[in-house]
Amino acid sequence: MGQSVDELLKELTLEEKCSLLSGETFNDSQSVPRLGIEKMLMTDGPHGLRKQSDKPDHLGMNVSVPATCFPPACALGSSWNREIVYKMGEALASECRAENVAVILGPGNNIKRSPLCGRNFEYFSEDPYLASNLAAQHIKGVQSKGVGASLKHFAVNNQETKRLTLNATVDERTLREIYLTSFETAVKEGKPWTVMCAYNRLNGEFGSENKYLLNDILREEWGYDGLVVTDWGAANDRVKGLIAGQDLEMPSSGTVNDSKVEAAVKDGSLPVEYVDRAVRRLLELREKLHAAGEAEPVSYEKNHRIAEEIAEECIVLLKNEDKVLPLKAEDKVVVIGEFAEKPRFQGGGSSHINTTFLNKPLEELKKLGNVEYVKGFACAAEECDANLLAEAVEAASRADKVVICAGLPEVYETEGMDREHLNIPGAQIRLIEEVAKHNKNIIVVLSNGAPVVMPFEPQAKAIVEGYLLGQAGAEALAKVLYGKTNPSGKLAETFPQRLEDTPCFLNFPGEGYHVEYREGIFVGYRYYDTCKVKPLFCFGHGLSYTNFSYEEITVDRESMTDQEKATVRVKVKNTGAVAGKEVVELYIHDCQTDIVRPYKELKGFQKLSLEPGEEKEAVFELDKRSFAYYDVEAKDFLVQSGRFEILVGASSEDIRLKAAIEVTSTAIVKKHFYRNSTFGEIYYYEPTREIAREMMDYFERESGIDFSLGDRPADFAFRVICDFPLKTLVTFTKGRFSEQQLTELLEKLNGVSHE
Amino acid sequence: MGQSVDELLKELTLEEKCSLLSGETFNDSQSVPRLGIEKMLMTDGPHGLRKQSDKPDHLGMNVSVPATCFPPACALGSSWNREIVYKMGEALASECRAENVAVILGPGNNIKRSPLCGRNFEYFSEDPYLASNLAAQHIKGVQSKGVGASLKHFAVNNQETKRLTLNATVDERTLREIYLTSFETAVKEGKPWTVMCAYNRLNGEFGSENKYLLNDILREEWGYDGLVVTDWGAANDRVKGLIAGQDLEMPSSGTVNDSKVEAAVKDGSLPVEYVDRAVRRLLELREKLHAAGEAEPVSYEKNHRIAEEIAEECIVLLKNEDKVLPLKAEDKVVVIGEFAEKPRFQGGGSSHINTTFLNKPLEELKKLGNVEYVKGFACAAEECDANLLAEAVEAASRADKVVICAGLPEVYETEGMDREHLNIPGAQIRLIEEVAKHNKNIIVVLSNGAPVVMPFEPQAKAIVEGYLLGQAGAEALAKVLYGKTNPSGKLAETFPQRLEDTPCFLNFPGEGYHVEYREGIFVGYRYYDTCKVKPLFCFGHGLSYTNFSYEEITVDRESMTDQEKATVRVKVKNTGAVAGKEVVELYIHDCQTDIVRPYKELKGFQKLSLEPGEEKEAVFELDKRSFAYYDVEAKDFLVQSGRFEILVGASSEDIRLKAAIEVTSTAIVKKHFYRNSTFGEIYYYEPTREIAREMMDYFERESGIDFSLGDRPADFAFRVICDFPLKTLVTFTKGRFSEQQLTELLEKLNGVSHE
Repeated sequence: MGQSVDELLKELTLEEKCSLLSGETFNDSQSVPRLGIEKMLMTDGPHGLRKQSDKPDHLGMNVSVPATCFPPACALGSSWNREIVYKMGEALASECRAENVAVILGPGNNIKRSPLCGRNFEYFSEDPYLASNLAAQHIKGVQSKGVGASLKHFAVNNQETKRLTLNATVDERTLREIYLTSFETAVKEGKPWTVMCAYNRLNGEFGSENKYLLNDILREEWGYDGLVVTDWGAANDRVKGLIAGQDLEMPSSGTVNDSKVEAAVKDGSLPVEYVDRAVRRLLELREKLHAAGEAEPVSYEKNHRIAEEIAEECIVLLKNEDKVLPLKAEDKVVVIGEFAEKPRFQGGGSSHINTTFLNKPLEELKKLGNVEYVKGFACAAEECDANLLAEAVEAASRADKVVICAGLPEVYETEGMDREHLNIPGAQIRLIEEVAKHNKNIIVVLSNGAPVVMPFEPQAKAIVEGYLLGQAGAEALAKVLYGKTNPSGKLAETFPQRLEDTPCFLNFPGEGYHVEYREGIFVGYRYYDTCKVKPLFCFGHGLSYTNFSYEEITVDRESMTDQEKATVRVKVKNTGAVAGKEVVELYIHDCQTDIVRPYKELKGFQKLSLEPGEEKEAVFELDKRSFAYYDVEAKDFLVQSGRFEILVGASSEDIRLKAAIEVTSTAIVKKHFYRNSTFGEIYYYEPTREIAREMMDYFERESGIDFSLGDRPADFAFRVICDFPLKTLVTFTKGRFSEQQLTELLEKLNGVSHE
Repeated sequence: MGQSVDELLKELTLEEKCSLLSGETFNDSQSVPRLGIEKMLMTDGPHGLRKQSDKPDHLGMNVSVPATCFPPACALGSSWNREIVYKMGEALASECRAENVAVILGPGNNIKRSPLCGRNFEYFSEDPYLASNLAAQHIKGVQSKGVGASLKHFAVNNQETKRLTLNATVDERTLREIYLTSFETAVKEGKPWTVMCAYNRLNGEFGSENKYLLNDILREEWGYDGLVVTDWGAANDRVKGLIAGQDLEMPSSGTVNDSKVEAAVKDGSLPVEYVDRAVRRLLELREKLHAAGEAEPVSYEKNHRIAEEIAEECIVLLKNEDKVLPLKAEDKVVVIGEFAEKPRFQGGGSSHINTTFLNKPLEELKKLGNVEYVKGFACAAEECDANLLAEAVEAASRADKVVICAGLPEVYETEGMDREHLNIPGAQIRLIEEVAKHNKNIIVVLSNGAPVVMPFEPQAKAIVEGYLLGQAGAEALAKVLYGKTNPSGKLAETFPQRLEDTPCFLNFPGEGYHVEYREGIFVGYRYYDTCKVKPLFCFGHGLSYTNFSYEEITVDRESMTDQEKATVRVKVKNTGAVAGKEVVELYIHDCQTDIVRPYKELKGFQKLSLEPGEEKEAVFELDKRSFAYYDVEAKDFLVQSGRFEILVGASSEDIRLKAAIEVTSTAIVKKHFYRNSTFGEIYYYEPTREIAREMMDYFERESGIDFSLGDRPADFAFRVICDFPLKTLVTFTKGRFSEQQLTELLEKLNGVSHE
């Protein structure tokens, strides 16, 4: 292992240290052979290894060494299964070890702000709690095998359009509750060895030099002690970045930036401690790698089976009328759509994997039943081919059931580009319409990395959301369709009825090089729920071939302070005839109204596996954060004291059980009052209420305003006086209440005890 | 008339000048008897004179001298009739002259941002073009008779909740396109003698000391030369206000603030020029009053008839199935609802008028037909009275037609308080439901100052929106219901299906003492239209007892520069059997997409009066502003060069005719480029396109990135390169393109000619 980090730091020359601040090649960190410091290989993930074998690029067009393509995060998020995500991390790492990869660049954990974002297929969810919990497992799984993860893209990289220079304006509360929360648990619990910064600007500062993000929040608040790496090419002002907490620039930019750093140290404008800090983190990463034990030999066959097992948990049964699914072995099934032969199982860009094995859905289906195939349409065809259509209609009219493999062609979904609409190609819509006229048992199976609109929904008896399922998706889909596997995925995002319903419709992707997150905290179901906009399929939705009954909810206490915890237990029973898995979702509704909040927020989930007739308990622990909002003035998460509802159900719309709890905030928020503070402010602050009463009486008598009632609400005068600022004690009494008295009043108000 | 303004300014002592900066009493300005400067009386409006006879207040609870209550702006806005608004102004002024009133405090012209705003009944519209055009006529009408108007509340006073201290955060473009545009034409064309500032803060600054509003925009940009008066009690830091352009503080605050000003002048912290400027404006107002001719004697009878004539133009026929309206003299009609005996014709607060005459709708209806009355419900009753209900059901089941007089009780709508929901009291809903089971010819007549939701809409064959019609509303309503007058009002605001659909639902009335206008420019139909949210009744909607056919649209040119004008002519024909009036509405749709814009915006309207079979032409002139958006960087209204659609119709949803025009911007927007400017920015700027082509080729060759296509859009590589910032020329070539070359490239790019 050689020298310690401290020893190496002493031996390294300034020039060597600066050289370590950027890559040696496109994917390797710099080496210093003189001191035995090896280069470390960092390759793309997040759902498979993309070690490039030739000229590397970061746009995913070059061939990479074969690796298992696991389900991308769009599918993985739908599993709501922490264990399976961890398992995927372990399997990923085994392939990294075999290829001598030090760090795999994932998981991606940006929030799905708009379904249009071209890279959503690499992200988990629209909900930060779900996303952060799954990302933590991904990281822990990878790192348990001695490979570093790289949590990305920190933060607020929620679109591809102009991502390299875009400035995103996001208010502090939204940042904290949504976009940072999605990273927070992943960092605190997952403890990734590296974090990758975002390309874009947040509130004016590039991700690579945003001290607020990289130092103040990530390191100081969250206690992160790993390495921060730039997204490939994200470095801007390298010296500024170093000071902000950006350790390693990737890829190599030759000596361009390193020499700027060296010059800055030499001319005294940059204290060398910043260089040392970054180099120390790089050397500490090296130590973690050295500390990893011997790698187990990788089995690509085993990993393919793991990929299949995961894929089975990710498929979401959106609709299933008349139990048209599962297919029976004896059903005469016609499969239509080129996706059956040319499956879409991953997205385009840096995450693009050169698979080890790959089967076709059609073949897998044929293994399980009586299946005929007609092409019907080509994946990317916009216009209907009349011959293909006629053939499909003819075949459909002879079949018991029709499985239409539809979805988005790869050209629609790729890193580097956002979609402009939510439509699938016109040829598919047309075909489904026509075929549905000749067969009532239409089953639509979708392959897509993000929501699509479904004008065909009324014609489809069943809809299976297959997302992008990785290289073993064909097997998983076939098993689900034939009921060999009971589907258990649930949507980790809302499927809107139309693009115009999406919360950021008016503010995505922004104008010029600027985007404003005006929808604020109302992202995903937080918006649909609060504004009562009916989605096509809601967040958390997913059906099963069995039924689950939510039997009972118990909370171990009726009230708590925000320093205490409560345990919620929910009994769920499989009341159907087949085994299945149920994701139990827990949401919190704040009954207080002083602060504008989403109607409810996800604060717990658990996936239960239940045999027919079996009952199990889902157990959730609630703490301060379960009830808190981010208070911008207090710069902290606070709880509004009062009643909260605990809503437990099978989806964000399908709440089955409710309980309530009183939570009391222990935070002491010291108020300060000014001339323009109102009577209402001092009245509704307990410590100054008595003074308020007295002054309001005085104002009512002396202001010259007649507050008699007329045809007004009974509390009209009180409410009106509440809105008057204290300064009007002087002006509305024409100075009978003097400026001096006002000054004294303010001193008195500000002198009260706040406890 | 005595001495000139200049002479008086010379004679006044500093103390006297400072005394003139605030009121003498609640409604009078200060006098200086020594120099013959009389006090000037300013009393509430805007739709009637409220000269208080006793202890004055600004909450409208005291009795005032009798005056004609004309239709409040909520109704007046629905007239879409410039002439009638002007006529109302003249009539108002005649009553002011009779009472020696110098200034009447109106019109109110804030934008209806949310239907919940308690004072919406005093405002014209959700659309700034319509609002500003009508307000200008109001002002011109009043001032034509030698009385000053006071355009209020300038600006962004769009809610009552916490209005005295609230801070509204509004972005510059929204401010310009919506909230300031609603004042702009009113100021430029109406030339009000006084403008009243808003209470609340805008982007941190109180309305009474907002230099940006009161000086930079109002005076310097718009050329306003009149007096600015505070809303009553809105003064904050009086010295700061004076510097900002706030001339007169009302009401009297004794000598509290005047002495602060005097002290500031004496200690040198306030140049006396600011005092002189304000006093000059006050004295100039006095000169305008002196210049007014002899007043004509007022006739309250005549004014009542004018109030009726106006009211008839304001009523909006929202729905009329099976021609259930107009009522026939022989119809056996049952009238239900206490509003028939206790009409709501105005709102609460400072605009509350002590009427000269007031009739009841029931009496007026009885004059015209066979009418029976049962009370059914009390105006404010939430709970249904079983006896009243039974009586109503019984009467309805015997009638041909049922007229239900429903609406909002006064307690729901008042200055000083916003509504919390859009419901009418539950007793009314219940009654309509029950009665509709026994009679299919349900006609609902509404009295309300702002939109309500209508769960009863499917049960009502006809719905008549009576708003608040002033003291002659009873006569007007009866005439419209019996077809003596053909209704011609159209909605000046959107009626949403539910509160959650309103564009600022999540951001009204804000939190604490702060509100953010996050919906931006998407106010009213701009939102519903663009996001395709179906309203209950759309902006501009209103039916007639006759039919109008839109025959032809012609534009006098196919293209224009933004310095030219175009004339649009639209032929409209009355194809029905009775005379009627039609509001012809003209909207502009910008076909360009670089800038996010509402789908369409109102840019012209004209009300035509047509005999049966008659055809007339509506003529509209379009200029730069008709096509422009506000460009924040250029700090100017700019046109996106390209194609625009001219949409003409009977409502915002009912577009009947379309034409197109090409508009070319003549603005020279000089671009500057930086290290982080992208290849796309220099490519899409014509003067630097050739350089861009060259550098993009170089980057593609030298960056080390393989831009070969794969399964991607044909223009993928081009689009991706467009997003790269110029600095990557250095980093992605590892310095082969040097920093020095980048500096030279930027110099070259910034040196091109911009014309």
